Amino acid sequence: MNGAESLVTTLIDQGVDICFANPGTSEMHFLSALENPRMKSVLCLYEGVCTGAADGWYRMKDKPASTLLHLGPGLANGLSNIHNAKRASSAMVNIVGEHSASHLKYDPPLTSDIEGLARPLSHWVRRAESSTSIAWDTVTAVAKASEHPGQIATLILPGDTAWKDAGQAITPAPTTPVRKAPDGARIDAIAQVLRSGEPALIILANKGTRGRALELAGQVAAGTGCRLGTQFFTARIERGAGRVPLERIPYAVAQGAAFLQGFKHLITVETKEPVAFFSYPDKPSLLKAPGTIVHELCAADEDSTIAFEMLVDALGLGATAPILQQRFETAPPSGALNPQSIAYALAAALPDHAILVDESLTTGRETMGYTMGARPHDLINNMGGSIGYGTPVATGAALACPDRRTVCMVGDGSAMYTIQSLWTQAREGLPVTTIIFANNQYAILKAEYANMGAGTPGPQAMAMIDIDRPTIDWVAMAKSMGVPGVQVDSAEGLYQAMVRSAQEPGPSLIEVKLY
Amino acid sequence: MNGAESLVTTLIDQGVDICFANPGTSEMHFLSALENPRMKSVLCLYEGVCTGAADGWYRMKDKPASTLLHLGPGLANGLSNIHNAKRASSAMVNIVGEHSASHLKYDPPLTSDIEGLARPLSHWVRRAESSTSIAWDTVTAVAKASEHPGQIATLILPGDTAWKDAGQAITPAPTTPVRKAPDGARIDAIAQVLRSGEPALIILANKGTRGRALELAGQVAAGTGCRLGTQFFTARIERGAGRVPLERIPYAVAQGAAFLQGFKHLITVETKEPVAFFSYPDKPSLLKAPGTIVHELCAADEDSTIAFEMLVDALGLGATAPILQQRFETAPPSGALNPQSIAYALAAALPDHAILVDESLTTGRETMGYTMGARPHDLINNMGGSIGYGTPVATGAALACPDRRTVCMVGDGSAMYTIQSLWTQAREGLPVTTIIFANNQYAILKAEYANMGAGTPGPQAMAMIDIDRPTIDWVAMAKSMGVPGVQVDSAEGLYQAMVRSAQEPGPSLIEVKLY
Repeated sequence: MNGAESLVTTLIDQGVDICFANPGTSEMHFLSALENPRMKSVLCLYEGVCTGAADGWYRMKDKPASTLLHLGPGLANGLSNIHNAKRASSAMVNIVGEHSASHLKYDPPLTSDIEGLARPLSHWVRRAESSTSIAWDTVTAVAKASEHPGQIATLILPGDTAWKDAGQAITPAPTTPVRKAPDGARIDAIAQVLRSGEPALIILANKGTRGRALELAGQVAAGTGCRLGTQFFTARIERGAGRVPLERIPYAVAQGAAFLQGFKHLITVETKEPVAFFSYPDKPSLLKAPGTIVHELCAADEDSTIAFEMLVDALGLGATAPILQQRFETAPPSGALNPQSIAYALAAALPDHAILVDESLTTGRETMGYTMGARPHDLINNMGGSIGYGTPVATGAALACPDRRTVCMVGDGSAMYTIQSLWTQAREGLPVTTIIFANNQYAILKAEYANMGAGTPGPQAMAMIDIDRPTIDWVAMAKSMGVPGVQVDSAEGLYQAMVRSAQEPGPSLIEVKLY
Repeated sequence: MNGAESLVTTLIDQGVDICFANPGTSEMHFLSALENPRMKSVLCLYEGVCTGAADGWYRMKDKPASTLLHLGPGLANGLSNIHNAKRASSAMVNIVGEHSASHLKYDPPLTSDIEGLARPLSHWVRRAESSTSIAWDTVTAVAKASEHPGQIATLILPGDTAWKDAGQAITPAPTTPVRKAPDGARIDAIAQVLRSGEPALIILANKGTRGRALELAGQVAAGTGCRLGTQFFTARIERGAGRVPLERIPYAVAQGAAFLQGFKHLITVETKEPVAFFSYPDKPSLLKAPGTIVHELCAADEDSTIAFEMLVDALGLGATAPILQQRFETAPPSGALNPQSIAYALAAALPDHAILVDESLTTGRETMGYTMGARPHDLINNMGGSIGYGTPVATGAALACPDRRTVCMVGDGSAMYTIQSLWTQAREGLPVTTIIFANNQYAILKAEYANMGAGTPGPQAMAMIDIDRPTIDWVAMAKSMGVPGVQVDSAEGLYQAMVRSAQEPGPSLIEVKLY
């Protein structure tokens, strides 16, 4: 086999069996190697879709996907969603094509410093130097990516490394990531804090917001009276009826600080203390009140299930049942579209075990509370703050969970960033409902303009915030890429369109007309 | 004034009076400063459009535009077209928003190593440390960008630098770039080569392919019998009837080498000797024949007009008239669409002094010869090889030259990369005709698959090359962003649509159905 075949075979043997690809000339041997029937290849028409889809895949599978990117610029196009994935602790193995070493020295047009571009947003970068050793590079890349928290591994593949002979395949067993336990003394100290009865908030993140860790957290809350919360953005939360409910720290600095004011103790799980998203003149960066004490129950690289098992033991709460969210039946709303009626439509229409990818910004930001008692679902947020994450992540999540409905709520400004996702959704027949909140503006910036103390936007500034000239026709946009679309201008219209979309097998788009 | 106002005022005073922007929260003060009536602000719905448009602006104006990008990920989204601009020697001043230093230390979600991301593709990077010194940072950025060849300057703007008081405006005069002359002895040596009568090809690039430099090159060719050529890709060529004609070195390695085989001497002007675009197993990287001698008439940082003036003097050709391209009247073609009939339609329909942005790849690659005798026009190529350059560059070129028609020929695969350009073209009412060559595949990769010796693509590999499931509806795509579109399936249809588009004031899109 050649180097490319060795690479692809090793990826599969290490458990990486999907590749989100946008190939170029230098990756033709890799493309040929993708012919392997154990590897699923998914073509994306822009690299930001590849890397965002890999993020979505990881969030639902807890194992890395691979991407195939064409030299430095192909990697560059994927970087902003790599940033978002990195901030979400999503693992990913990026394969970046490159000129052969013998050709590089002539500095042909597509040459760039690929390592330089990769390093700021990768945890691990390596250039595969030979076809005979690339299998070991690949084993290392997958092992590195699969650490907890998930890592970004980037492997650079020169053309001659891909096409030269690699000898026999090697098949080491995939490494099992280490589960790191927190220090027992730390657990005991936190148990004492919780027993004190002083107001405490446990802030859960990453793997802590689902499965057994979440249930155990629910036992702690039921037994001690502490409250359970999350940062405003979380990689993935299992929520809705039957799940342990988590409170969300508000986004805006004043509201976030007000929410935290009553707590004497903040106890962090796989996250840090709450920080403002942006800096503003005369506003604090840290949201906690003066005098509040921050305790780390579980560091980012520790296992929150183990941490909560230790804490439940220390507190003697093994027999305590967690308080679970009741199902709240929401009547389908009618009338005008507004954040509340939209939230009700969502709560009523969300199918069982839906995956809800939220990039709705201003429209959806403060209304997620209404879906707390909806049917059980997974909620996915943008962790890195770079817009254009939603539709790619929905694409990857839907590939990971083809039997569930993925609902992607996205603002119009954000949707335009990586709208090419729709094409991949159509090609793969994915069960994704994309809901575009079309308010014809970067609405968030209007609020932020005032928050920043920049005064009232003049006409020139407003023209950089409004995206209403021309109005984007989202139904035509969807049609252009083979996705059926519909425009709705009422709450009942949105509800009905959502219900219909969940009954159809493939993707669809709903334009929520807010202007 | 505050730091942002100081920055914008200084940009304008230094001659940078357009900003391609996609702002975020941290840039609200900059947005407010853009209110300045001497600055033209252009909103782009993706950063790759901003940076590509800045490239197009420079190609037609020979002066830098500015961009406004939102932190590291916003810069990342613009990097691939910065790569293309860098390879085209296009100057650009990127303003990248950033958190205030006091906030950065908390590592909020949008934090990344902006310098690290900027450096691989920038010639100059600086973080503006205070609002009182940012004017000088800006003067330096514009001076650096305006060097010859044009440079990429990236200035990082922390929030507090933008909003703090900057004191009084400073107004140093813009620096005039130095015009560097080549060494006289080198000119004399090349004159001797040209007098020898041995077969010689002068390969012109960058500023050498237009204006006075091109005319002088024509005098040299007329007087010595040498031939004049260009690399396959050139930043901007003034060509068509009445211009000094230049031969194009073919793209494919075998054809490129065959073209060069007859020359004893290659004489380079603002470029290097021809190199294959990619490396292939068993194909050379350098295209020249063994024994061919390469002479540098004018280095990349030297002035080709001065170089040719010196050469014409040395050869005593001051009174020799250049041979100019005759006008070749092309009859409007009819019948089936194929590369030749498309080229004829283009040649017949191209309006006087059109700007032709070519990203047509397989469809247009070998047919540009047919437009040699068309009405005079400027031809712009992709210098960096990262696809998705065409529609943004056309947007910037049209803003630079609103009285001319810009025709953007683009393959469907490439067009999908930065299709958001259409929206900016509609908003600004730009005279751009976008011609989409819709063959429903990355056709270039089918040829490259064989060139690479990767055999015949299997079904999985083919699925990564064909983009026909679903078929992209380009007329719907154009409509979604407010651009009128039409599909044509015959040569006369293409010709007529081109003629009609040139008669309408704003943008339009023509889908050339090749499947």
